[in-house]
Amino acid sequence: MMNMKLLSLPCRYTLSRHLYSSCSVKDILNTQPEGCKKKLKGWAKAMRKMKENIFVDLDDGSTHRRLQVVIPKNKIPASLTYGCSFEAEGVLVRNPNYQLELVAESINVYGSCVVQDGYPFAPRKTYHPEYVRQHLHIRPRTATFSSLLRLRDKLSSAVRNRFAEDNFIEINAPVLSSNDCEGAGEVFAVKPDSENLVKEMISKDHQSPMEAFFNGQTYLTVSGQMHLECMARALTKVYTLGPTFRAENSKSRLHLSEFYMIEAEQAFIDNTEELLSSIEKTTSTVVKQLLEKSSDEIGHYRNIIGASKDNDPVNMVNVPYEVISYQKACDVLEKENCFKNSMIRGKPLAKEHELFLVKYNGQKPIFVVDWPKDLKPFYTKAIPNNKSLVYAVDLLCPNVGELCGGSVREDDYDVLKEKLSFVGLEDKLHWYLELRKFGNVSTAGFGIGFERFLQVLLDVQNIKDTIAFPRWPHNCKM
Amino acid sequence: MMNMKLLSLPCRYTLSRHLYSSCSVKDILNTQPEGCKKKLKGWAKAMRKMKENIFVDLDDGSTHRRLQVVIPKNKIPASLTYGCSFEAEGVLVRNPNYQLELVAESINVYGSCVVQDGYPFAPRKTYHPEYVRQHLHIRPRTATFSSLLRLRDKLSSAVRNRFAEDNFIEINAPVLSSNDCEGAGEVFAVKPDSENLVKEMISKDHQSPMEAFFNGQTYLTVSGQMHLECMARALTKVYTLGPTFRAENSKSRLHLSEFYMIEAEQAFIDNTEELLSSIEKTTSTVVKQLLEKSSDEIGHYRNIIGASKDNDPVNMVNVPYEVISYQKACDVLEKENCFKNSMIRGKPLAKEHELFLVKYNGQKPIFVVDWPKDLKPFYTKAIPNNKSLVYAVDLLCPNVGELCGGSVREDDYDVLKEKLSFVGLEDKLHWYLELRKFGNVSTAGFGIGFERFLQVLLDVQNIKDTIAFPRWPHNCKM
Repeated sequence: MMNMKLLSLPCRYTLSRHLYSSCSVKDILNTQPEGCKKKLKGWAKAMRKMKENIFVDLDDGSTHRRLQVVIPKNKIPASLTYGCSFEAEGVLVRNPNYQLELVAESINVYGSCVVQDGYPFAPRKTYHPEYVRQHLHIRPRTATFSSLLRLRDKLSSAVRNRFAEDNFIEINAPVLSSNDCEGAGEVFAVKPDSENLVKEMISKDHQSPMEAFFNGQTYLTVSGQMHLECMARALTKVYTLGPTFRAENSKSRLHLSEFYMIEAEQAFIDNTEELLSSIEKTTSTVVKQLLEKSSDEIGHYRNIIGASKDNDPVNMVNVPYEVISYQKACDVLEKENCFKNSMIRGKPLAKEHELFLVKYNGQKPIFVVDWPKDLKPFYTKAIPNNKSLVYAVDLLCPNVGELCGGSVREDDYDVLKEKLSFVGLEDKLHWYLELRKFGNVSTAGFGIGFERFLQVLLDVQNIKDTIAFPRWPHNCKM
Repeated sequence: MMNMKLLSLPCRYTLSRHLYSSCSVKDILNTQPEGCKKKLKGWAKAMRKMKENIFVDLDDGSTHRRLQVVIPKNKIPASLTYGCSFEAEGVLVRNPNYQLELVAESINVYGSCVVQDGYPFAPRKTYHPEYVRQHLHIRPRTATFSSLLRLRDKLSSAVRNRFAEDNFIEINAPVLSSNDCEGAGEVFAVKPDSENLVKEMISKDHQSPMEAFFNGQTYLTVSGQMHLECMARALTKVYTLGPTFRAENSKSRLHLSEFYMIEAEQAFIDNTEELLSSIEKTTSTVVKQLLEKSSDEIGHYRNIIGASKDNDPVNMVNVPYEVISYQKACDVLEKENCFKNSMIRGKPLAKEHELFLVKYNGQKPIFVVDWPKDLKPFYTKAIPNNKSLVYAVDLLCPNVGELCGGSVREDDYDVLKEKLSFVGLEDKLHWYLELRKFGNVSTAGFGIGFERFLQVLLDVQNIKDTIAFPRWPHNCKM
């Protein structure tokens, strides 16, 4: 049986195998195959009519740069209009500006685009991001947003590279979790959509429809931190880059209901210093890599959106970042009278306070450390000589304020047990406590909002313009 | 204001900055710094007592290999037992077997591990995966599962490399979606956990608690395909690697409620041949890269779990894979009488049929193409000369059967409109139809179950042992 041969297989399809990958605009601009005959496929963007020829920019999304296609007038199909998809075959030659262009021998239009028939983006027009956002399914066809998507991809690669080079192991923290974010109430709960399925799965102990499927309330994750702590206690250095969720009725330019977080956790760290080093190593090497590999496209994007020169990504590269204690930060803020909400010592910093501190630091990133314990979650470790303060850190950046939050975690079994009991989570987080019982080590970690990172890097005003399919209160299109 | 200098910053902490990254077991085994003095931190695994010394395997999770630490008897703390966390400082020397080992000058135990006090894994014992799974938070400390986690990380990197090298752009397809999987009912629905928030957000048009937050029912994604189609129509080649969800009451060894999918979509593909090439290029280059970079750990893992030699990952590397049509596959299956469920022509293949076809093909991957249209979703494109068949493909593999499904998508506006109207989704998927209206192109794509890919590669029997935090009916721990 095992060596039986399959005799009756149909022949493989006999079409020729010229995959499209061999001729993207990106490859052509990278390899500069002057004089070669190539076939390209993409969409028509800017068109310029001259006496003898028409010049069409072919955009295939592989790069922000486009390839100019020169089409003799007698070879122009009527359907070749702005926005249409087409194929051009011809020879690559260098034009007087020393740029490669394709002199077309044949043109084949696949799909026309009649702007008057409801296409939301007319040629040579720019639109407000809010208008563009109303057409999510067409938005990637704009120069601005396709550029953003490529840069988002590059940012995500740079993040993964930074961690892989330093022996961090990527963990997929779960989206579904029985952890409700310490009861803060800002979570989404899930249940099967099918009522029949719910009925089928209800049991004596779990009669609520919300509990039937998983034998308990189940939520969308707000953070993978606790799950990563499990992993750091076996693999030493771990990280995740995945979706997290917040059920908040906030429509601010800095919040989404579904957003991505870079979270990292490291064992054998028990002090703020090493935590700060790990955070600034992450942000600085990632931005450095991006500026090296994608400066062209970053410049292109920032140019289109009119990014402020004050918020310069180079500021993220220069380490070490400045450090200020929460108390000192309060001293600074107290002297100012320019705030809508005045600073109250012992309370969280408002967004305007965060942005002021960044400005005060010359628009460079700044760490705020040594927070009052009441401002940080129960699992944050107290500073040994000053029990009212904890080993917690916020990294503040231009445009967004808080980009990153981190802390050393409470690793003392008895102290954590008491804290869990105080917040009423001793039963629910028994597993979390038990991590401290066997082969216990100190761990520290941090979380960086991925979309906010893009906002800092590119000076994007609204977070909804940094993600392919933004979800926010009253909005979950597609 | 802008040039104001922050004069009152506290000095940076003055601790020395020797980050742990410089001395992981992985780095030491890679760089072989014989004769150097090093400090290592990790967990004690196997211990062997000799006359003069004790030999302890130090495991820090950075690699499946461990570093032997030699400790003179007079320097052994009583708390140094199996499972404890400790630090060892000493000189790296080569032992008679030419392996590096650390001759310890000092030992510092951080956290003890008293097996008798409830630690689930005793030294030198192996446990059934089902037992190990009951201790999810401790599971990463077993040799088997920490190895799995590292290989999962490697698989994910290899997948991203394959796509990046071929100019695919990574898109984060949304987890929250208004798309309910064509009404198949196997979806999870979400709502805010807080009843107050729900009340606050309810509106005239959306009075159900399930609709309040997002102005409509919102589900967890079952596939990013349609979202990727948007993107391929601007960026040509896109992919995603992220979580997807299925609310099915299935406890099989091949199903999870939350699982990862590799999904790719390419514009300008209108035939099965190029689709098959893209799929087999993905699986073969990914497995090739893994066998090149991680053969040691793959061998180690397969050895511990007793993987079958019949299911050899090398079979994934050799392309092209065999191809059989659905009809021919039925011919083959019809001749067999060994099935629990006999094959019925025109119906889906059962798991045992899939596995039989793979076996029949010498335990090598095999494509099944040209499916009856009723067996595939409405968006699958019909084969022009035979309207009862569609351009769809399943890739069948050892151990799991279907690893991958793909199709050419219906790109004709009028045909798709009729199909949408037939399934009652014309309103809901208006945006999806409109993709075909402007600059229309053909697209094709596929989805590979990420955990099943691990099952094929490593011969893992149960999918629950391929993911850090498995979720399945009645189980969502932590």
